[in-house]
Amino acid sequence: MSITFDVFRGSPEGRILAAQVTRTLEHNEVFIETTHSGVCGTDEHCLKLGCVLGHEGIGIIKAVGAGVQSVQVGDRVGFGFTHSICGTCEECASGWDQYCAHAKRYGYHDHDNGSFGHGAVWDEKCVYQIPEGYDSVHAAPLMCAGASVWEIFMQYGVRATDRVGVMGVGGLGHVAIKLAAALGCTVVVLSNTEAKRQEALDYGASEFYVYKSGGAVPEGFQPVKHLLLCGSGQVDFPALIPLMATRGSIYPLTATRTPASVPLAALFLRGIKVQGSLVASRNNLRSLLAFAAQKKITPTTMTFPMTPAGIEDAMQTLREGKMRYRGVLVRDMQ
Amino acid sequence: MSITFDVFRGSPEGRILAAQVTRTLEHNEVFIETTHSGVCGTDEHCLKLGCVLGHEGIGIIKAVGAGVQSVQVGDRVGFGFTHSICGTCEECASGWDQYCAHAKRYGYHDHDNGSFGHGAVWDEKCVYQIPEGYDSVHAAPLMCAGASVWEIFMQYGVRATDRVGVMGVGGLGHVAIKLAAALGCTVVVLSNTEAKRQEALDYGASEFYVYKSGGAVPEGFQPVKHLLLCGSGQVDFPALIPLMATRGSIYPLTATRTPASVPLAALFLRGIKVQGSLVASRNNLRSLLAFAAQKKITPTTMTFPMTPAGIEDAMQTLREGKMRYRGVLVRDMQ
Repeated sequence: MSITFDVFRGSPEGRILAAQVTRTLEHNEVFIETTHSGVCGTDEHCLKLGCVLGHEGIGIIKAVGAGVQSVQVGDRVGFGFTHSICGTCEECASGWDQYCAHAKRYGYHDHDNGSFGHGAVWDEKCVYQIPEGYDSVHAAPLMCAGASVWEIFMQYGVRATDRVGVMGVGGLGHVAIKLAAALGCTVVVLSNTEAKRQEALDYGASEFYVYKSGGAVPEGFQPVKHLLLCGSGQVDFPALIPLMATRGSIYPLTATRTPASVPLAALFLRGIKVQGSLVASRNNLRSLLAFAAQKKITPTTMTFPMTPAGIEDAMQTLREGKMRYRGVLVRDMQ
Repeated sequence: MSITFDVFRGSPEGRILAAQVTRTLEHNEVFIETTHSGVCGTDEHCLKLGCVLGHEGIGIIKAVGAGVQSVQVGDRVGFGFTHSICGTCEECASGWDQYCAHAKRYGYHDHDNGSFGHGAVWDEKCVYQIPEGYDSVHAAPLMCAGASVWEIFMQYGVRATDRVGVMGVGGLGHVAIKLAAALGCTVVVLSNTEAKRQEALDYGASEFYVYKSGGAVPEGFQPVKHLLLCGSGQVDFPALIPLMATRGSIYPLTATRTPASVPLAALFLRGIKVQGSLVASRNNLRSLLAFAAQKKITPTTMTFPMTPAGIEDAMQTLREGKMRYRGVLVRDMQ
């Protein structure tokens, strides 16, 4: 079966260009009519590569390949950063299935496929049923921003008795606050601006401190056991150490290609770890969607039209630091 | 009770000087007549500070303070890197009691106390009974070198089914091989010299590879889940990533004050962590002594006289990279 659909690509000039793509559904693939897509900082990183952007997609399955069994036409699903699953390698077998390198890849690795557009072709193993009644506008940001923080909460022993630090209130940070609060943690927010205090508290933070990278420990600050680095800038690691409880964990979530200068002696003396973590495994993404729907946890969003102009507007808003807090492209289905 | 004993200090010129110290035993303190002491790279770092050196001591308790209850005169005990325990702070209560900052400190932090000498005064809570029949020459290196690697095996989920990498065959590395092999792990040794292959295999390694910092992945190398960095040099972190299994852990054990350049994106994409770890908690040090005695695991040692000349000889041997693999000072008790 051959399917033609509209997509939106970045370009070397940084503009968003409409194009058409024609694909033949493979045995295990589904065609999703995309209705919503979150806009992530990674889209900015990939803007000039010319590929179809977007990895926080929500849509309706409109066609399925001959071998598809787990979903059917009419299902509302999310798709995004989980690009490929071979299902058989050591990583997939161990549950680390968010970045399998042994299968055909979707998303950025497939130049013609992404959630910025009117459709996408994806592996059935990498799409997620959206719980009934949970709005697609809210579900979209969970596919990457929510998944990135949720993976930490599920995977690295975060407990309700812990003080959990969230540094940076943006696309990831604001969802981290809401989710950690719903998990019962004491959420300690660090932001470089006082302006975000009230929102952070409204989202469930127990404490809020103004902190600029490299700064001193804020007055009255008590150490945190887990610290999620959700900001977009470079981080001064030595200055973070006094914020940490003994045997605490630091999670850098910023997709940076610049190596960080990490004070090994300080890690060593305090039993601190720097833990890399990448979006969520399939299993954890499923539990995120169920938890968010059950607890009625919704990202705070700004919506834009799913058009080249709407995408450019959304990305400019993000670039200027004015997004509150996740942009979602919404397709006009009229 | 006032006690006078001989100690050996470093000096700004790098020589070892004999001196006498007089102490009054406090309520909780014991006086240990030192018979053996391991020699560690950290002694070299502290050589010019003028303090009494040594933190891998074994000796016999000769006097106890009025409140001492857990040990008695005549007991053979180890003492070393565990400098102080308040017993009440959050760290102590949580079992991270190897570096409590809330109590009087012994060792380097107390200028006049260490295991290079004929005696030491220590908190009863920081001395360890040596199992009967386990030689003091073998017990001494367990107090820091052994403790440093054992803490990782006990604390961070190392299992017999894991491939455990040991990079650097020296004071720490050679004990790590022996202990990890006794724990049933597949021990994968990386050394910068082919010359250590046979010894590593004799100690229990399953595999041996020549690897120089920053080098390519050795031919045939399969990733390891845990990697203990036991060498004394700077480490090229980006080059380590391909050696690691997904979700693997890197443990830098070198006491370096130079921050390392750590590739955050690589940690992130593979779920890898850099875990700081410091000697062993009291509980883990006890289990190490019991395990080593039960399994008859003994460090490989070279002995030197517990005299200024003997200490200088041992430290020179270490400096020249000729120690095989831990130097132990032995007091002539005639």
